[in-house]
Amino acid sequence: MTLSTSLSDLAVDDSIQLEQQGSILTLWLNRADSRNAMSLKMVKAIQQVFAQIADDISIRAVILRGKGGHFCAGGDIKDMSALRAEATNVENLQPYVDFNRCFGAMIEQVDQAPQTVVAILEGAVLGGGFGLACVSDIAISRDNAQFGLPETGLGVLPAQIAPFVVKRIGLTQARRLALLGLRFNGETALKLGVVHEVVRDETELEQLLRDTIQQIKRAAPLASRNTKALLHRTLTEPLDTLLDDAAHQFAQAVASIEGQEGTMAFIQKRLPNWAE
Amino acid sequence: MTLSTSLSDLAVDDSIQLEQQGSILTLWLNRADSRNAMSLKMVKAIQQVFAQIADDISIRAVILRGKGGHFCAGGDIKDMSALRAEATNVENLQPYVDFNRCFGAMIEQVDQAPQTVVAILEGAVLGGGFGLACVSDIAISRDNAQFGLPETGLGVLPAQIAPFVVKRIGLTQARRLALLGLRFNGETALKLGVVHEVVRDETELEQLLRDTIQQIKRAAPLASRNTKALLHRTLTEPLDTLLDDAAHQFAQAVASIEGQEGTMAFIQKRLPNWAE
Amino acid sequence: MTLSTSLSDLAVDDSIQLEQQGSILTLWLNRADSRNAMSLKMVKAIQQVFAQIADDISIRAVILRGKGGHFCAGGDIKDMSALRAEATNVENLQPYVDFNRCFGAMIEQVDQAPQTVVAILEGAVLGGGFGLACVSDIAISRDNAQFGLPETGLGVLPAQIAPFVVKRIGLTQARRLALLGLRFNGETALKLGVVHEVVRDETELEQLLRDTIQQIKRAAPLASRNTKALLHRTLTEPLDTLLDDAAHQFAQAVASIEGQEGTMAFIQKRLPNWAE
Repeated sequence: MTLSTSLSDLAVDDSIQLEQQGSILTLWLNRADSRNAMSLKMVKAIQQVFAQIADDISIRAVILRGKGGHFCAGGDIKDMSALRAEATNVENLQPYVDFNRCFGAMIEQVDQAPQTVVAILEGAVLGGGFGLACVSDIAISRDNAQFGLPETGLGVLPAQIAPFVVKRIGLTQARRLALLGLRFNGETALKLGVVHEVVRDETELEQLLRDTIQQIKRAAPLASRNTKALLHRTLTEPLDTLLDDAAHQFAQAVASIEGQEGTMAFIQKRLPNWAE
Repeated sequence: MTLSTSLSDLAVDDSIQLEQQGSILTLWLNRADSRNAMSLKMVKAIQQVFAQIADDISIRAVILRGKGGHFCAGGDIKDMSALRAEATNVENLQPYVDFNRCFGAMIEQVDQAPQTVVAILEGAVLGGGFGLACVSDIAISRDNAQFGLPETGLGVLPAQIAPFVVKRIGLTQARRLALLGLRFNGETALKLGVVHEVVRDETELEQLLRDTIQQIKRAAPLASRNTKALLHRTLTEPLDTLLDDAAHQFAQAVASIEGQEGTMAFIQKRLPNWAE
Repeated sequence: MTLSTSLSDLAVDDSIQLEQQGSILTLWLNRADSRNAMSLKMVKAIQQVFAQIADDISIRAVILRGKGGHFCAGGDIKDMSALRAEATNVENLQPYVDFNRCFGAMIEQVDQAPQTVVAILEGAVLGGGFGLACVSDIAISRDNAQFGLPETGLGVLPAQIAPFVVKRIGLTQARRLALLGLRFNGETALKLGVVHEVVRDETELEQLLRDTIQQIKRAAPLASRNTKALLHRTLTEPLDTLLDDAAHQFAQAVASIEGQEGTMAFIQKRLPNWAE
């Protein structure tokens, strides 16, 4: 494990832990005693990491996972108590608004991250944790993970995660999950399209993660970034101008060092040099 | 069965029947002799009910189902004959236009209904009945129900239901179903995402409906309404302003009576008071 | 096999082959020696065919399939070499841009084709071939077909097909497939929603294709065209104006010759005259 200096500097907050192996960065949620409930500090720390690596082409994937057998149980109740005091003090609801909004900002940032994001889903994957899982590029779940949107049962809304859940699994499934507040396991998460793969134990998980990382490394770094950004844009931009722009991106990729190496490797029936 | 006065007043038209049990309203399509084919009167009666209860927070769910073993076989052929006469009389197509458009208005109203809408799908679920099923929050189907979009086979279009079918199951599946006019059963409807659950007999159906109602009651009434509205908005509104607004809704929910009771019940490990 | 004069005139380029049986046109990709890799000529030939038949109501379906056991292995490497020379010559990337953009134009044209489009997917269904498969109304796959988006592994982007892949299977699955460049078979393609049906051998394939054609013929020609166009519009147009317009289309269909024949056939319990 080699941790680059700049990234180790970043990890000022022990609510998360960073681990770097070459081009792969693992971001551990590190509040095992509260099933990695997301504190404001944790949210800010995640944002800082993704901001820091955004233009770092040497980091090709981020693995998101939780310490202690849980991914993330949602928002942190203790933060809520502090907010209540603050709201009483300022005599308005702004503290709650700011707190809630920053979750959405973080989830959007991870969604749009140029790196390929892999989520390892174990134990609790609830509320905000569910939202975070919904923006991964590849989601691998333990069969016995527990997914759910418990918000309406607590008298509140899945406010910041609603758009990401609908984008992930469609309105048809999202409305039922949010209105019933159901818990469900990895197999159901697979059927609903929340996750891409389900594993039965730790051994299978580590094997699949290794294979996934190897596969990620076979994709060209720049081409992957540009492809991910392009896929996102298909949801909001008009088709014709998007295709015009995509053609320009294609031309640049073909003429680039990556494009030339990719074609050469294909013709020579060898792995391209970025596959390590 | 207690029927509130205002609602019993409403049921002037015997094309539907209302049945209220506490916070749950069952709306029966009541034209068993024509497999609950949707007459103009039935459409108007459904609209009237949903308009009447829209602001009634005491009604938390609407169960849509059909009398006589069928959900709904589509538009009513008899109405069409009457329209033909009328169109001939006025020498234009406006009678058809008005008739058709009101189906879409009804389906949109049910789609946007603040209550949690459960559809019980048995027997024929065709054409307009299929469209209505597509806007439920929770759809439970008998395995032997018959789903389908027969319109193109009759020389017409699934005009008012097209947007709701695409929203439900995506364009990929919708185009095939509409162009081939295929019939399919509950298991296939589950695979396609039309319905959420399939049951094999009446006993299973009643059990699942009871469980679903219980689950609906565990979700806070106001939070459920607001969550449903928010989920709909994710499909049409820009992300940033939606998340801004959602944060305000979250803050209000946390500070509300529901939010306080929800947190308290969670800490005290008891059901919240709205769970009855 | 009867080939109408105008269509046989069209087939000037042997990169495709046309075969007409009554109202069904089969368009064969005909470059078996390169697994039907899509050359610029092939792209132009496909566009020409779809442009030619766009207003021809007598052609009700187009079957897309490949000669030699493959559907289509993607773009043609040989064209790329020629482009490289051309780009060097003109000292800019425009040749790549134009080449790439015309793929997207062709796929969009097939997507919007008024005919019902059936894709028969065998062998390689890669890159541009995958994109073309994604715009069919009915996709039938052999179990051992090989699907995939290999672009990022070659240092380029699935530029012109990205929007069609996302429209077909959603962003959740598209991001994983494009970023990992995975290959997968017909069963997985079915689970992901790329295809609608999987067959195990040639006999099953031909039987299902016959049944599908028969089913297509049961749908009224004009109603099918209008329904397909309407389904597409649901993705981009506001609901209310779309439903207004759909009501007018419905009225015209009901009053049309098709609508009258459809109703009559339904009442007389016979097949409508367009079913042949």
